[in-house]
Amino acid sequence: MEAKLQELRSRLAEVDDLQSAAGLMYWDQATYMPPGGTEARARQLATLDRLAHEKFTNPAVGKLLEELRPYEERLPYGSDEASLIRVTRRLYEKAVKIPSSFVSLLARHGSVSYEVWTKVRPANNFAAVQPYLEKTVDLSRQLAEFFPGYEHVADPLIDFADYGLKASTVRGLFSELRAQLVPIVAAIADQPVADDSCLRTYFSEQKQLAFGREVIRSFGFDFERGRQDKTHHPFMTKFSLGDVRITTRVKEDNLSESLFSTMHEAGHALYEQGICRDYENTPLAGGTSASVHESQSRLWENLVGRSRSFWQYFYPRLRDVFPEQLGSVPLETFYRAINKVQRSLIRTDADEVTYNLHVMLRFDFELQLLEGRLAVRDLPEAWRERYKADLGIAPPDDRDGVLQDVHWYHGTVGGAFQGYTLGNILNAQFFEAATKAHPEIPAEIATGKFGTLHNWLKEQIYIHGSKYTTAELVQRVTGGPIRIGPYVRYLREKYGELYRL
Amino acid sequence: MEAKLQELRSRLAEVDDLQSAAGLMYWDQATYMPPGGTEARARQLATLDRLAHEKFTNPAVGKLLEELRPYEERLPYGSDEASLIRVTRRLYEKAVKIPSSFVSLLARHGSVSYEVWTKVRPANNFAAVQPYLEKTVDLSRQLAEFFPGYEHVADPLIDFADYGLKASTVRGLFSELRAQLVPIVAAIADQPVADDSCLRTYFSEQKQLAFGREVIRSFGFDFERGRQDKTHHPFMTKFSLGDVRITTRVKEDNLSESLFSTMHEAGHALYEQGICRDYENTPLAGGTSASVHESQSRLWENLVGRSRSFWQYFYPRLRDVFPEQLGSVPLETFYRAINKVQRSLIRTDADEVTYNLHVMLRFDFELQLLEGRLAVRDLPEAWRERYKADLGIAPPDDRDGVLQDVHWYHGTVGGAFQGYTLGNILNAQFFEAATKAHPEIPAEIATGKFGTLHNWLKEQIYIHGSKYTTAELVQRVTGGPIRIGPYVRYLREKYGELYRL
Repeated sequence: MEAKLQELRSRLAEVDDLQSAAGLMYWDQATYMPPGGTEARARQLATLDRLAHEKFTNPAVGKLLEELRPYEERLPYGSDEASLIRVTRRLYEKAVKIPSSFVSLLARHGSVSYEVWTKVRPANNFAAVQPYLEKTVDLSRQLAEFFPGYEHVADPLIDFADYGLKASTVRGLFSELRAQLVPIVAAIADQPVADDSCLRTYFSEQKQLAFGREVIRSFGFDFERGRQDKTHHPFMTKFSLGDVRITTRVKEDNLSESLFSTMHEAGHALYEQGICRDYENTPLAGGTSASVHESQSRLWENLVGRSRSFWQYFYPRLRDVFPEQLGSVPLETFYRAINKVQRSLIRTDADEVTYNLHVMLRFDFELQLLEGRLAVRDLPEAWRERYKADLGIAPPDDRDGVLQDVHWYHGTVGGAFQGYTLGNILNAQFFEAATKAHPEIPAEIATGKFGTLHNWLKEQIYIHGSKYTTAELVQRVTGGPIRIGPYVRYLREKYGELYRL
Repeated sequence: MEAKLQELRSRLAEVDDLQSAAGLMYWDQATYMPPGGTEARARQLATLDRLAHEKFTNPAVGKLLEELRPYEERLPYGSDEASLIRVTRRLYEKAVKIPSSFVSLLARHGSVSYEVWTKVRPANNFAAVQPYLEKTVDLSRQLAEFFPGYEHVADPLIDFADYGLKASTVRGLFSELRAQLVPIVAAIADQPVADDSCLRTYFSEQKQLAFGREVIRSFGFDFERGRQDKTHHPFMTKFSLGDVRITTRVKEDNLSESLFSTMHEAGHALYEQGICRDYENTPLAGGTSASVHESQSRLWENLVGRSRSFWQYFYPRLRDVFPEQLGSVPLETFYRAINKVQRSLIRTDADEVTYNLHVMLRFDFELQLLEGRLAVRDLPEAWRERYKADLGIAPPDDRDGVLQDVHWYHGTVGGAFQGYTLGNILNAQFFEAATKAHPEIPAEIATGKFGTLHNWLKEQIYIHGSKYTTAELVQRVTGGPIRIGPYVRYLREKYGELYRL
């Protein structure tokens, strides 16, 4: 059995190496690649994705997994070896349903479409990317069709992001949360809008980046095992557990943009950097789902990075970096500025309260596009209408409307967005559990120390990689299922105080 | 036959995509990768190199090449299709002699060894890299042994760099050149040393890089299809004909370092950017040999970049960038400074005249190491002695001695250096042919225009990719074989005037 497990590991290592190479090619395309590289890069990514898929779906892998079943069943469920076999089998059974040629087609299309998006977004030209998005929707449906017997056509796609999760579950949680959120948003809308002009003077790129690095280094981001670069749309990626990278974009007239996206991506990176090194080069060496991943990015960005305690320590430091801009701005003004609630157009800039409304409408659009109830050509108009209905404002153009997020232009439609709001729900659950175990955490944060929180998260969540599903992990960490209570409580407390509700 | 050729192309495309991915991984390792990525990167490179080798040496490729032989024989030798089949067959016949596992071993060793070198060079610690270099020599010999029947053990390794070239040919040319060079070097040594202190004040990195970019843009380097990054040891690499990258290193107390290495690497890049786009994704899409490649880097760096005509146009511009440093330095002083001949320690900093002595001793060491006549542990001492004998100075430490070049620490020993001097010989042959066809070239250079030269090189050399061997190309372009005459003539004229010999 040891020999069989070794053979499985060696086959998985080859797949992982190919996937890491593809990951580097994506990163490079988004950071440094010159425009002339586009066409070849699309082809190269398609080749690597196809080869990785071919290697992974080799029947020999299936045979090994079958042969290892009795061995797995003798081991404890949570053991590293049983988990490796179990998680690999789950991925294998999904992967074999998709032809390699389709994987290759999807990768190539994603790469070309991404490149088109980077050009049409600044040009505000949805029409130019429309045929690409139509093809994306079509390919997404085709992808779902490889998994017949689904309850909803989005389910197989959501399942890629979050194993076992269904559209109906998401709809249930979202409608529950929405019922709580809408009155909070409405109550805040009756209050005067916070003044965030202090964030909108001039902040040099270099200083912003240096400050961001200082913050995430103090979180525990390890620059020996990671780095930060600039890109159109911030993301986290990794090429091994020793090489976890984040990207950011900087606006010199907006201090929030890069700072909070840096904390956000660093949250993702802390998760990956914290995974047990023994899992290197196997399918266990990654965060377990989009939602748990997002819970970590949002936890570090919001529950930590937008908290009053955090800025008690860091605001004096930020003032030292930008004395002219912030020297006469009191901490409380700054704190209110970074937590300003306002119905706005851009998801990534949205405050914690309205953010979920942005996500929910995207999730609904994904379902409608997949169901065929909404045509891509009607999407910009539908987008404007829905923003008006849900957030009370409509984008003046598609650049800040339907073109704002990379997701649909780089991959598939379906399963791309629900993780953001699930992550919000989960981050509050996790943070509540952390502070219950270590009530000193908020006080530590106020002194610029994050070790207790970081260690707790490592031990409870990060170290396990993808050993446990979202549901299993939430159960282990919080003693129950995913539930919106802690998140609603968190919002009510924080924004109740801020807006005197 | 069309179908068979198509199948061949498609198999070659897959190999090329894997090689491009590996190339990107090397580039990333040398530019941006954090230290924590080292171990995994070595493994990933080994996997990709092995897979590329496995795919290329698949017997189906050999069978296709056999089946295509009659087709090839009906086509003109220089046709794209016949050339593709011929060049692929040549590479295939070499590749099948090397086991994939060895390719993988070599790649992994090269990657680890490189990482060790980047640390030990600044620390001046040869002992720490000695066991790696011993293994490199050992692996290089093993590699040669896959090609029994060689005349010299270095021949199979030289053949990788320059198809058909043998150690005996190189020795012959080198001894002929040496006989001409030594008296020139000696005569110059009797003259007062040029004053290059104007190059050694403070020049900000940013301004140096910007000026370098301006220069190579005027050469014709296409930044839409390329870019420049910083690294330990400058190099050129490409991931497709639309994505050709160069790297440089900058010293703020030395204006020459980055400027001339930028022109040098840009010369390599102009070659690759000039290859016929139809060859994309095939073995024809690369420079034909190390020596012809080097002829282009040296041509742009030296025959253009260190010429008086070039600086007639560019010196006023350089002065605008560095008015404090160069405002009171006359053009002639600057011209003499950048062409200062001095027996020195560092190959990449060496002047045109002594440069070849650096190369020849490395070539000799490679042969001795491979023959087993020199042990790696004795190399630092042998290095010092030979430098004393040939250049009259010995390095005070290994950092500026045997540790200075990346080559032996990143790949194999044997075949790594002869291309530099062959490139010098060839660049003068090519430049002589270019100015014979277009006598206006020097005058154009003096007005900052390089179009005539660049176009001639494209049409004569670049466009052909690796269609012709070095010998075939030299014959086509100059009407004869490789010969040292033009190079010696060039050195005599330029340095005769400079040093009043």
